Amino acid sequence: MPMTNLQDRITTSFQAQGLMTTLGAELALVSEGEVHIALPFSERLSQQHGYLHAGAITSILDSACGYAALTKASPGCDVVTAEFKINLLRPALGDRFLAIGRVQNAGRSLTVCTGEVQAFSGTGGTPKVVALMQATIATIRP
Amino acid sequence: MPMTNLQDRITTSFQAQGLMTTLGAELALVSEGEVHIALPFSERLSQQHGYLHAGAITSILDSACGYAALTKASPGCDVVTAEFKINLLRPALGDRFLAIGRVQNAGRSLTVCTGEVQAFSGTGGTPKVVALMQATIATIRP
Amino acid sequence: MPMTNLQDRITTSFQAQGLMTTLGAELALVSEGEVHIALPFSERLSQQHGYLHAGAITSILDSACGYAALTKASPGCDVVTAEFKINLLRPALGDRFLAIGRVQNAGRSLTVCTGEVQAFSGTGGTPKVVALMQATIATIRP
Amino acid sequence: MPMTNLQDRITTSFQAQGLMTTLGAELALVSEGEVHIALPFSERLSQQHGYLHAGAITSILDSACGYAALTKASPGCDVVTAEFKINLLRPALGDRFLAIGRVQNAGRSLTVCTGEVQAFSGTGGTPKVVALMQATIATIRP
Repeated sequence: MPMTNLQDRITTSFQAQGLMTTLGAELALVSEGEVHIALPFSERLSQQHGYLHAGAITSILDSACGYAALTKASPGCDVVTAEFKINLLRPALGDRFLAIGRVQNAGRSLTVCTGEVQAFSGTGGTPKVVALMQATIATIRP
Repeated sequence: MPMTNLQDRITTSFQAQGLMTTLGAELALVSEGEVHIALPFSERLSQQHGYLHAGAITSILDSACGYAALTKASPGCDVVTAEFKINLLRPALGDRFLAIGRVQNAGRSLTVCTGEVQAFSGTGGTPKVVALMQATIATIRP
Repeated sequence: MPMTNLQDRITTSFQAQGLMTTLGAELALVSEGEVHIALPFSERLSQQHGYLHAGAITSILDSACGYAALTKASPGCDVVTAEFKINLLRPALGDRFLAIGRVQNAGRSLTVCTGEVQAFSGTGGTPKVVALMQATIATIRP
Repeated sequence: MPMTNLQDRITTSFQAQGLMTTLGAELALVSEGEVHIALPFSERLSQQHGYLHAGAITSILDSACGYAALTKASPGCDVVTAEFKINLLRPALGDRFLAIGRVQNAGRSLTVCTGEVQAFSGTGGTPKVVALMQATIATIRP
């Protein structure tokens, strides 16, 4: 599938995810094998100490990995997350967050992705990696 | 810590999690080594095909495992999720969902929990397990 | 496939695994959805403190989960481990070890298993669980 | 600790791992935050189709990640694997294998590593990545 069609398809799919709207997440980049999703911090997404909840971190990173896998799938195929593992490296403290999903290996029926969530605070400065994921995405043939 | 105090502490902590309110999740059971969190389905929490998003499933199950670990922690200690792995077994289709987190081993600094999310449809009937988690929770000493 | 044929097939496959012979592991039970593999301790399998190496624990538990999945696969299908996650709960100290793999959900293309390794010391007594696994096994169709 | 002392310490520890000798594994590189372990193929380490068994792949990669974490630990501290997750990307077919463990984040009590196993066939040529790991290593203070 040409990349433009793929971007359109992923944008449409992303907008159909009620949870992404509820969280306030936005699709930030779609390229072959890599997808970024951005999320501004909000108290609506906090855990008990006021940081971003691991569930919100996981939600955007799972979606980023799933869509990254979709960029490598055969035309007409869909994808679904079979499983993932995530390490939470430090408190998710920041004004905004960026989830990056990358395809590591695209097999016929399973695609393996890795991903990270970066936290940004204030203006400029180096982001901190707050989470690392390794995910298995299943390809669904029509 | 007596169990009543523990229930109060977990209830207070749960209510301080902005994400749980945003999702519409409710604390359903707190017992020693086991915590349940309930979540009614809403289109606000969907993925692109209209099922419950893996991120919502993961959010309630991570919280259930974390609080289960807290029921086994020494008084004055806090807990934080170090990492978890989740398998999504089937499309998360249902009217309401129940996340169950259980302590499998409580060590001095790390507690290992397993958990599942059950999906309920209509009235009565047997729930279907839609997700399985294995999580590592770190104990934070004061 | 009748269970006797399945036991024969798994026994033959197990004996073809050079690593199981090298480790000294033995197939202890094959039943529908559950397989046990036994391993006596040996210094040949130790880590640096003299306990059983995590690699040996993982090897028998991965095989137990894989064969458990095979008991649920359609006739003529083979299985291969796509991924697993293992928690090592305590030092693997014991005279002999038993890996137990159990099918939790058998899908068309992916089977999810959980498993544990129990450590036995001396005569009698309750075994200690030293490891917990959650694994995804892919079905290979002919 | 100066790097030479660290290399000595890791070499001594590696040689005390009975399993590494049994498998025929060798320590190939120790640098700050990264450790390599090499393993020649042998039928003694095979699974039922004659490829390298996932248990052997996992054993060398777990050790590589553990020792990588040790290069970042405070002097006098020891490390132990708390858990890991591994994806097996393709059949482990090759003459020799190289496990690479890398520290991604070294916290006070937990270090997160990622790793891969590369398969080499014949002379020269690009290796193939056959496995990806994400591991959590606990620091043991004296």
